[in-house]
Amino acid sequence: MTFSRVAIVGLGLLGGSIGLAMREHLPGVASAGWDADPAVRERARERGLVATIADDPAEAVRGADLVILCVPVGAMAQAAHAVAPGLSPDCLVSDVGSSKQGVAGALEQALPNHAIIPAHPVAGTEQSGPDAGFSSLFHHRWCILTPPAHAEAAQVDALAAFWRALGATVEVMEPAHHDLVLAVTSHIPHLIAYTIVGTASDLEEVTRSEVIKYSAGGFRDFTRIAASDPTMWRDVFLHNRDAVLAMLGRFTADLDAMTSAIREGDGQAMHDLFSRTRAIRRGILAMGQDDARPDFGRGDHDERQGDEAEPPPQS
Amino acid sequence: MTFSRVAIVGLGLLGGSIGLAMREHLPGVASAGWDADPAVRERARERGLVATIADDPAEAVRGADLVILCVPVGAMAQAAHAVAPGLSPDCLVSDVGSSKQGVAGALEQALPNHAIIPAHPVAGTEQSGPDAGFSSLFHHRWCILTPPAHAEAAQVDALAAFWRALGATVEVMEPAHHDLVLAVTSHIPHLIAYTIVGTASDLEEVTRSEVIKYSAGGFRDFTRIAASDPTMWRDVFLHNRDAVLAMLGRFTADLDAMTSAIREGDGQAMHDLFSRTRAIRRGILAMGQDDARPDFGRGDHDERQGDEAEPPPQS
Repeated sequence: MTFSRVAIVGLGLLGGSIGLAMREHLPGVASAGWDADPAVRERARERGLVATIADDPAEAVRGADLVILCVPVGAMAQAAHAVAPGLSPDCLVSDVGSSKQGVAGALEQALPNHAIIPAHPVAGTEQSGPDAGFSSLFHHRWCILTPPAHAEAAQVDALAAFWRALGATVEVMEPAHHDLVLAVTSHIPHLIAYTIVGTASDLEEVTRSEVIKYSAGGFRDFTRIAASDPTMWRDVFLHNRDAVLAMLGRFTADLDAMTSAIREGDGQAMHDLFSRTRAIRRGILAMGQDDARPDFGRGDHDERQGDEAEPPPQS
Repeated sequence: MTFSRVAIVGLGLLGGSIGLAMREHLPGVASAGWDADPAVRERARERGLVATIADDPAEAVRGADLVILCVPVGAMAQAAHAVAPGLSPDCLVSDVGSSKQGVAGALEQALPNHAIIPAHPVAGTEQSGPDAGFSSLFHHRWCILTPPAHAEAAQVDALAAFWRALGATVEVMEPAHHDLVLAVTSHIPHLIAYTIVGTASDLEEVTRSEVIKYSAGGFRDFTRIAASDPTMWRDVFLHNRDAVLAMLGRFTADLDAMTSAIREGDGQAMHDLFSRTRAIRRGILAMGQDDARPDFGRGDHDERQGDEAEPPPQS
């Protein structure tokens, strides 16, 4: 079983990247799409994110054998209701949401008569919108499928083959376990980054201009993550609340321990932690999940591109 | 006033980069160096980090009119004592430490008869050791000087000119204010990164292999920071304790507020924070302090280099 027509609902970073990757890797498969925002549809047409942009969600999915909902987690139910009138009875419905238990429940409720296999490609950048997508976003990235117990094996295999064609490596996982794993590897890091950037911008003793100027000492990496789409992330925390709170509790306890070590001048406790965290970094590089070059290869700032990357004024 | 002979004590990332940058930008200035580790001295000779590598610290600084101590903050006093027998009476002593009040006190105590102007180039990567340095590390980066009240203006100017020649933009700051600014922009981000990587590697419900595999969702950026030199960072937290604890208190309070927002499902509070943090990112890009390309330009992983960056196995 393979798909002959794929419809993408929501044409931002993820939806646009799926369309562009399909054009590159699956040229024989028809693509159609829709976005709730007319300006996004217009831009998606100009960039050719999918072959056909419909002005109506039901029209976009008509004749499709795979529909992928690429909207914030909190908008999944609404998107499912919007496409329902146009869905073929045997069309598989999937998504790209960052939390899976909540999405599965919402989609099953909205589309009780359709096969649903949620998915989560663990890939992204801090950019969003119809200009953000690119065809290689999924290369060497994992895509996690969380099929319900009653899912047809042929459909799971077909969806896995689709993601592999786009460059991803596919894993199958229980939805609850997915939500716990991603709480650690993605949701908590985002929450921490948003929070520290907020803390820094609220200080009275240190100006915002100083925070910006001296950000190269570590802070700037957090600001990149904290530039991610606010609506998408609000929805993640609303929909993966329990796993996020559980992991946050562990992090807070560990931070309290480090705070005590600093207060008490316990250099050994610090050195122990700071040494063993290097092993995880080595694992990530060995698995090809990050750039091994120092500073992600951005060390030579003379090679930087883009109008915004002007050097600071010489004093 | 300019320097004709510069001695670098400690030949890791910072010391090595200063030597390489001098060779490129100040070819007329003599350079000498020493490191406490014989293996580092040997490697520094092979890479030509400085023109002359001495086997004795006093010998390394003989005839120098500027000595820069590039060792962890906690080793500054020891390094100062080691070079003291060779120091010319009019030699200026400086450093590159990440906290300035503690270093100033340690150096003034160790070298009571010498002019001391502490400095902090806000630049670095997660790498350390004699192979980590590169000549453009200070390009478009700030270097903060924290001269004592009694410092000679001509010496401050000469040290500023030295750093400008290496590509940095120089600012002068009170030591106490430096320590507060850097607590926010560098020390707390490192502490948080070390802690969350530690939390993730201690979980029982999520395996270390899973944390590594799915790190592209945000976690991997923290692991880069948490791969920084453990001894250097232990010393930073031991020596900038008060400012770090003060800033940590603010961050913890803000994190508690976000935890409550998640618990209570307060989407508005989340969306407000996640929206306003984007302004800081825009400021950092406009000031040329980070790479404006999505994902630091590492989005296309097919272009990655290095033996360690192998793609994951296809399942």
